[in-house]
Amino acid sequence: MNKTILLVEDNPDDEALTLRAVRKHMPHGIVVARDGAEALDYLFATGGHSERDTLANPLLVLLDLKLPKVNGLEVLRRMREDGRTRSIPVIVFTSSTEEQDILDSYRLGANSYIRKPVDYGQFCDNMKQVMNYWLSVNQLPPQRNCATA
Amino acid sequence: MNKTILLVEDNPDDEALTLRAVRKHMPHGIVVARDGAEALDYLFATGGHSERDTLANPLLVLLDLKLPKVNGLEVLRRMREDGRTRSIPVIVFTSSTEEQDILDSYRLGANSYIRKPVDYGQFCDNMKQVMNYWLSVNQLPPQRNCATA
Repeated sequence: MNKTILLVEDNPDDEALTLRAVRKHMPHGIVVARDGAEALDYLFATGGHSERDTLANPLLVLLDLKLPKVNGLEVLRRMREDGRTRSIPVIVFTSSTEEQDILDSYRLGANSYIRKPVDYGQFCDNMKQVMNYWLSVNQLPPQRNCATA
Repeated sequence: MNKTILLVEDNPDDEALTLRAVRKHMPHGIVVARDGAEALDYLFATGGHSERDTLANPLLVLLDLKLPKVNGLEVLRRMREDGRTRSIPVIVFTSSTEEQDILDSYRLGANSYIRKPVDYGQFCDNMKQVMNYWLSVNQLPPQRNCATA
């Protein structure tokens, strides 16, 4: 079973903060995609990720919205259209405070929407709660079926 | 703005436990629907709930799966098909441990899947974490748009 989380994040500072916060509280591996096209390549095992084992999908996707090449909402739309990725929980994790982004995210099938706190301590605390909720309180979809259409 | 949570639960013991656990930690009102048909009536303001203000949707739906009249997965399917209810977060809260139920819930657009703990203390603790996550950590969709298709 894959114990990986996919982090889709183009901002190096936010990437470093998230990795530090997540690694501190859980042993799972983290794969980072730095734009939306790379995220799609990872999810659908294309391009530079064509060798990835598609029977083992990431447990969760932490998805920024403002991304180069393909934006986060489009990544989400394509994930929800495809049976291989439809049931992977997607947590939008963004600095956007626009109501339209929140609404569009839910309408396109995001499981949750988290605003990145500016304060470092709060950022870590928030991420701890996100990880605890999704990996301990919540039941994730069974991996065996994630890859079937 | 509506500050209501809709609990869809047919088991009186589980209803009492949930109400006690939720009321303890948050001031929001709770509306209880005891079968799937009543839940749909509340959500779409039909039948006995035709007077409900549809501009103010519930903040969250806590949805059991094994329900009389209309089962939980069918309630979820109808919510996700309709623009008025598509973006309301739905947390499946059930005693089912069947992998197929977890998978079907995510595929139909559940935001999260929680197995009801049998132990009372754990039940309360779990519910506290669910409420904290969805009402404090997570950003809910803006109410103003929930009612638009």
